[in-house]
Formats: sequence, C-alpha cells, structure tokens
Amino acid sequence: MNSAGPLSHRRRWSQGVVQQVSPAEVTDLGPGYLEPGLLPVDLLAKAYREALSEFGSAALAYGDDQGALPFRAAAARRAGCTEAQVLVTAGTSHALYLIATMFASKEDVVLVERYAYDLGRKILTDRGLRTRAVAMDADGMDPEALHDAIVAERGRVAFVYLNPTFHNPTGIVVPEARRRALLEVAARHGVLVVEDDAYADLTLDGVVPPSMAELAGYEGVIRLRTFSKTIAPGLRLGFLIADPRTVKRLVHHGLFASGGSANHVTSLAVATLLESGDYDRHLAWLRAQLKARRDALVGNLTGPFEFDVPAGGYFLWLRFAEEARVPAEVTVAAGARFGDGPGSAVRLAYSLNSPDRLAAAGRALAGSWIPSLERT
Amino acid sequence: MNSAGPLSHRRRWSQGVVQQVSPAEVTDLGPGYLEPGLLPVDLLAKAYREALSEFGSAALAYGDDQGALPFRAAAARRAGCTEAQVLVTAGTSHALYLIATMFASKEDVVLVERYAYDLGRKILTDRGLRTRAVAMDADGMDPEALHDAIVAERGRVAFVYLNPTFHNPTGIVVPEARRRALLEVAARHGVLVVEDDAYADLTLDGVVPPSMAELAGYEGVIRLRTFSKTIAPGLRLGFLIADPRTVKRLVHHGLFASGGSANHVTSLAVATLLESGDYDRHLAWLRAQLKARRDALVGNLTGPFEFDVPAGGYFLWLRFAEEARVPAEVTVAAGARFGDGPGSAVRLAYSLNSPDRLAAAGRALAGSWIPSLERT
Repeated sequence: MNSAGPLSHRRRWSQGVVQQVSPAEVTDLGPGYLEPGLLPVDLLAKAYREALSEFGSAALAYGDDQGALPFRAAAARRAGCTEAQVLVTAGTSHALYLIATMFASKEDVVLVERYAYDLGRKILTDRGLRTRAVAMDADGMDPEALHDAIVAERGRVAFVYLNPTFHNPTGIVVPEARRRALLEVAARHGVLVVEDDAYADLTLDGVVPPSMAELAGYEGVIRLRTFSKTIAPGLRLGFLIADPRTVKRLVHHGLFASGGSANHVTSLAVATLLESGDYDRHLAWLRAQLKARRDALVGNLTGPFEFDVPAGGYFLWLRFAEEARVPAEVTVAAGARFGDGPGSAVRLAYSLNSPDRLAAAGRALAGSWIPSLERT
Repeated sequence: MNSAGPLSHRRRWSQGVVQQVSPAEVTDLGPGYLEPGLLPVDLLAKAYREALSEFGSAALAYGDDQGALPFRAAAARRAGCTEAQVLVTAGTSHALYLIATMFASKEDVVLVERYAYDLGRKILTDRGLRTRAVAMDADGMDPEALHDAIVAERGRVAFVYLNPTFHNPTGIVVPEARRRALLEVAARHGVLVVEDDAYADLTLDGVVPPSMAELAGYEGVIRLRTFSKTIAPGLRLGFLIADPRTVKRLVHHGLFASGGSANHVTSLAVATLLESGDYDRHLAWLRAQLKARRDALVGNLTGPFEFDVPAGGYFLWLRFAEEARVPAEVTVAAGARFGDGPGSAVRLAYSLNSPDRLAAAGRALAGSWIPSLERT
C-alpha cells in the first residue's frame, strides 16, 4: 500500500495546484511534505460529509471566534487543557504570523535555535522582526546561551521560538530536564516561549517528554499545533494552546470579531475525526508508514557523514566535515538554509517518497559524496 | 422554501458553534449574516466531494502559495483580470489584516467613510493604525474631503478603505463618476485604495458600475472579494485582486512561503462551483431570496424615519432626527457603531430572517418609535 512515489499520484499534482513539484526523475528529499499516497483523501471526503450532515448550516455560518466548541473540546481533551485555552488557527504559519504581529513590535528580537525552521524564521523577518540564533547542542538550545542572549538583547526580546520535539531540521528531541532548564530561564526573565509542536504526534520509537507548555502549566508558553503534518496541509488547520488570558487577548482582535473562527467548516470536519477515533487510527497507520520510510533510508545510508536516527517526525540530519556534493538524482535541503554551524549538513525528509525510492536514494547518497570528505 | 427563521435551523446553530445567537423570541436585524436556510449545505457537500475526487491528494497538499490555479483562473475570468492578479485569502477579514500588517506601519492612518464597516475598522485599529473618517453624502465619500484628509495627514496615510457597492452600513452604490473622482484624488496623491467589494454580486435591482479597481485598470487599488456573503462565511474563503507586482509582494511573504495557499482545499471546492455554473445558479436563487426579504421589510416599514431602498446587498439604513427606541422584539445595529453623523440611524439587515418575520419586524418597527421623533 502506498509504496509508489509521487509520480503515480501526479494527475493533478502539478505546478500551479500544489506548492512545489520536483522533476519526475529526481527523488526529492527536500521539502517537509507527505507523499501524496499518505494524504487521506477518502477520510477527508467522509469528514466533510459528516460535518455538513451533523452541523448543517451551522457548519457554514461564521464560526465561534475562538473556534467551534466541538473542535476545541476534542483538542483540549487530547492536550490536557481546557477549551478556554484553545484557539483555532489556519495552521502554524498563521499562528506564528498572528503572534509576530500581535505580540511583537517591529525591530523586536525573536530568539531561535542555531538551526531553526527556515520558513518560520522568514515569517518573523518578513514581519520586520530580527532573529538571533542561540547555541544548541544534541539536547537542544543551551539554557546558558539563552540567558546570555536575553541579557544581550535586554528589553528587545519579543519571544523565544522553539521546536523541541522532532526538531526541524535536526530531528532531535529535547529531554525533559533541558526543557525545564529552558523554561526556568525564560520565566526568570519574563520572556514568552512559543513552542512549535508540529511533529509531536509522529513518534516512531519510544515516547516523548511532555510538551514545554504542559511542563509550564501553559503559563508563559504558547504551544502551536497543526494537522498539516498528521492529516494534510491543504486543510490549513491548526490550533494554539495558551493560558486563557493570552487566548482572550488574541481572540478579541478585530480579525476574529470580524471573520469568526479562522477555519470553521474544516475544524468541524476534523472534529468528527477526532471524536470518532478515525484520527487516532490514521495516526497509527501514518506512523507505521513513516517508520518504514525512515528505516529504508537509514538502512541504506552509510558514508563519510554522521547522523542520529530520528525517533519521530519527518527529518534526518546528515553532518559532514566539509561541503558535500549531492548526486544529481537526489534533492536535499542544504543545512545552511536553517542556520550557520560548524562543518556542513543537509536535511533529508523521509516523508515524501516510498520506502523503495528512499532505499535507492540512501544508496545513491552513500556512494557519491566527494572523496576528499573526512568524518567530523 | 427557506421561509422559516433561524429557529427552525437551530439544532447545532448554538452558542459555541456559531459566532452569535439571538434569543428565540427576538427577530435579529443586527448582524450581516445569512439566514441558516440560505446557506447551501448540500451544494458544499457536493463541492468538497468533487474537489477531493478530481484533485485527489493534490487537494490536500500545500497549495500553490498564491492559490490553486483552477480557482484563480475561474476568479480571474469573472473579474476580467489575469490569474497573476489574484491571491487567495481566508476571507476579507484576513485580506484586510494582511494589508494592514504588510502595507502599513503602526500609527499610520487609514481613511474611511464617515460610516464604515465597524469590524473592518476594528481590524485596523487593533493592529495599531489610526482611522480617520472622511465626509460622505448620498453618493459616497466626498472627493474634496478625501483630498483634504490626505493633505491634513500628509505622509501618514497608508491607504483609503472604501466599500462602494451596496455599502455597509448605508446600502448605497457609489456612481461611476464619483468612483472616478475618488480614484483621481487617490492617484494624484499616490495613495493606495483598498476596495471592499463583498456585496457586489448581490444586485437586487438594476446594474452596478464597474468596481473601482476595474476603473483604475487594477493599478493603485486592491479589491477584496469574498464568498462569505454569497456562499457561506464558514468557508473562510475570499481573494484579492491587484496589480501583479502588489500580489507578488504579498505572496513572497514567509506566511505564504511556509503555509502555501491560505485555504487550499476549500478553494478547490469552490472552484468546482465556479466552473460548473452552480455558483451562478446559486447566486440567482440567493438574489431572489434576498429580494423577497428586502421587499417584505420595505413594504411594511413606514414611520417617522427616512430610508432609501437598497438596490442590493444585505442592509437598509434608517435615519431619524433624534435618538430612537427600538421595540423589544426586534434587534438592530445602532448607527453609531459605524461612525458619527448628524441625527440618528440604525442598520437593518434583511439577510437573516424569513420574509414573514421581516414583514412583522417592519410593522413592529413602524409602530413603535418614540412619539416625540420628528422627520429629518
């Protein structure tokens, strides 16, 4: 099932419909996309049908500004918070833009991990904010470096933007102790934490620590969740969780007073999936699919580089001592897109291709780095 | 068909699902909502089904940043522009927020009509902009007053926000000559015009002039369109039309680079309605429904007030010499919500109730203004 690559789903998977299309002959390990065959078309057809049948015209009206209660209730139950703490967003990009425009002033600083989601950073800088990279190690952002950065930018820090679980691009999971240490530093300085938690449902091995927001009792942390990585990005559906006061501050903005819920009918469609158990069944299936893909890539990847096997999410981070050349039949995301660091690195997404293609890509990558490369 | 009031559709039309619910015993002429029975539930169920069937996984992927081409092509054909000039938005509120955050700086001024959409103004002021009301008469904003306001606010004007067709709240249509005069003033000063064109498809009598954007050849004007008033607000789907350079400036923002199309799957669902002719058939039906509602209200509305019969849209503007008392069984929108002016006024929406209820509301209103009121 679903072992074919994007090519077999290409009928309307074309330029001008979807965001980006790679040439047919290239195995694209670049973007953080799901393989077309992993996008649950039938499940969504059913979800929209059921939402429109169950809610009728109420699914088509201006939705409750904060998001329809049936959706918020289901989201809150899963997150261990109250409905008052949930705000429906049109995905994480939308949520980050809202926070960057409503809770930050032009020329404020956002502290980010040394390697951080490039397009998330672009949302911040295009809004006129400055980002400052903070040193990280294999356990995530360094708390002392965070302290030093806050002190150095005294009064100008709008928030810290972190992605502690199955980090994009490095795939790491920040351990609980490190999460607590980072929270302690942020709280001590009264600096808001924005936790991008897009991948946390995609555990492939083991368990993950509680989110930073949960560890903080949802005080001083805004947690961003999305269905883009676990159902489908074309839905443009996510939600944020924060303390009720912060949610109120956002939802009282004219944007919500005027338009109502950020994505009403789609939130009701997804609410039917959350309530019926369909979402959990889909997630179990998707995890198995991603695990097969990760293992196919990892099992064929040997060469003059280092990597840690990611325990979840979409990404594997390959590190070299020097600049590397990638074989022409494979596309990867250059590490420099995400930030500067010692040596060289590339991000490989194992989400967009079949296990067979990933295995072949792994072999092609293993055999074709430039010979002068040395291990880091 | 659809002659029942909101009460008969109330099963899930309840607090926490939809934005606002009036008590059962009140005929609510306040909000610019469609009556639940006018929201095309079956049509949307079909549209989502067809979009998912036709586009498959491509409907669920990150959509083209500017919006899927099949949608943009259909929208452009109707507007007489090119696909490069169309950007998909999550409704007019979203579009206005984008323009207010991307094309204006905090403390800039937005010039608005003396009476203007209150929640649109709130989007601007909550974003930290200042609004300045410009005098209007029965033909819309006064061009000389616009000139004077631009001069008075020299260098601080981000844009002029206008709603020239079936104006919210007054229902007027700005004649073509006045549109040209306003455009001439804005162009002379190099000031951007944002044309909120939410109601233009809802002509009940006669024809409307070309949009200001069309008259300007889409130069210097951003036109905001939405399906919230003609299909359903819960879709959160609209689009803006501008010159290709302005569209590029918007679409190159990290927000779109990261999330892709602002509302991908729903734009493809609506594209099927635009292409099949279903949208036009629905529009013809909706116009007839609204016309019956407007006529039922107007035919029963006599009293110590003045009004012009609106030729389209949702709203009728009732003017008095003094403050008026409204009967308890009817809710209206106080004119002061939309701006200050001489005398007193209220906005009546004839979109949310059946003709029978509107006729009864008209009679109730006609009989119960305070006796001391005099005609203006």
